[in-house]
Amino acid sequence: MSQHRPGSTSGPAGAVPALPDLPEATVARLPEYLRALHHCAETGYETVSSEGLAAAAGVNSAKLRKDLSHLGSYGTRGVGYDVALLIDQIEYVLGLTQRRAVALVGVGNLGHALAGYDGFASRGFHVVALFDADPATIGERIHGLQVRHIDELPAVAAETAIAIGVIATPAAAAQAVADQLVAAGVTSILNFAPCVLSVPPNVDVRKVDLAIELQILSFHEHRKSTLTALPGGRAAGTSGQEAVGS
Amino acid sequence: MSQHRPGSTSGPAGAVPALPDLPEATVARLPEYLRALHHCAETGYETVSSEGLAAAAGVNSAKLRKDLSHLGSYGTRGVGYDVALLIDQIEYVLGLTQRRAVALVGVGNLGHALAGYDGFASRGFHVVALFDADPATIGERIHGLQVRHIDELPAVAAETAIAIGVIATPAAAAQAVADQLVAAGVTSILNFAPCVLSVPPNVDVRKVDLAIELQILSFHEHRKSTLTALPGGRAAGTSGQEAVGS
Repeated sequence: MSQHRPGSTSGPAGAVPALPDLPEATVARLPEYLRALHHCAETGYETVSSEGLAAAAGVNSAKLRKDLSHLGSYGTRGVGYDVALLIDQIEYVLGLTQRRAVALVGVGNLGHALAGYDGFASRGFHVVALFDADPATIGERIHGLQVRHIDELPAVAAETAIAIGVIATPAAAAQAVADQLVAAGVTSILNFAPCVLSVPPNVDVRKVDLAIELQILSFHEHRKSTLTALPGGRAAGTSGQEAVGS
Repeated sequence: MSQHRPGSTSGPAGAVPALPDLPEATVARLPEYLRALHHCAETGYETVSSEGLAAAAGVNSAKLRKDLSHLGSYGTRGVGYDVALLIDQIEYVLGLTQRRAVALVGVGNLGHALAGYDGFASRGFHVVALFDADPATIGERIHGLQVRHIDELPAVAAETAIAIGVIATPAAAAQAVADQLVAAGVTSILNFAPCVLSVPPNVDVRKVDLAIELQILSFHEHRKSTLTALPGGRAAGTSGQEAVGS
């Protein structure tokens, strides 16, 4: 399957192809396309139009075509994209042709939820280790995995290549945990703690702050309420721009 | 407190000030500044330089100054920003001067974690109702709240103004839940289900897909591994572009 996956089975250094240097926003949309494509495949579609795929992924179709052109995928006029081929291409670029091992640090409420999150397993990830620092939690079994003390991280990392470390600790503990993950050789971190982590430049950090998402929605709620409270509320939608000043 | 919060205590329609029409990226960074400012306040600082605040929020200081200028805040040369005043301004813009009521639908693992998430209460939100459709879950108490059947949503929404609906159901149920939230008058939705929701244009949706965050990290892991595997790995960063073609 395909000129777009050169050498994906070749082993030794030097034979491995370089990946396209994609814009970060494109990288962030590829998983959405992938999810929509899997849905197409499950419902029996072999091809999909850029409009159909764009709608399913919640983006506009011009942006989708541009994103996929970065991967060398242009579809076929009048036919669209080959679903199976495009799934392969995106999974290759995202590095999902191999299952990635995830280590989760911090098994409070959120950590529990993450440890048992079905979406990880079905989408290319495998939680291989759980860590905490609370003696009351060490030894507990969650979804078949025993919680270990964070000090065992180096030993575990030496045995199992950990691709991604997930931090679900309180903010105060997060930097120390990040340092431990980095020291153990982990170069990708997903941080749920509400704080900014300092890491070396070769380490990628993604951050999910649930309260921040709510605060962004709060802005929109607040804005909508001030617009509807303006005299002649109906015009509010169009008068939004004028209302800026101050 | 300030020319920048005109009329925040005035009641009737028409007297309510309009909010600045901020760039979405600025709105997304304001919660980060707010978190950093609260940390400044807690540690006793009354003023903070743009560089100091930018570092604490993890952005560059030019961007921070531009963002805050949208709010009419320029700081004072040689002194910086007044911490308490800036907290007030950002909280006003984000609509956090009032506590916002959150209704959570879907109390599986993730829903449990969200229902008990400390970060919500401390940052302006109050979970007021929990809903599910599973008879086995209805009636269960989680953090003091009883889980109700989703069909009770209209009655609850009629009693309590729900500012934000959080969907933590499986993907297959999410659209129906979104429809029910919209029908009950909810105009802001935070969606944790891995799917795209269709909502009317006056409804704002933010989406958190945990697997997507991991897939984005996976791309970077994959990319780093191909770079280090290339002969004379250093040049790989610049050769990335060549590999695209096809």
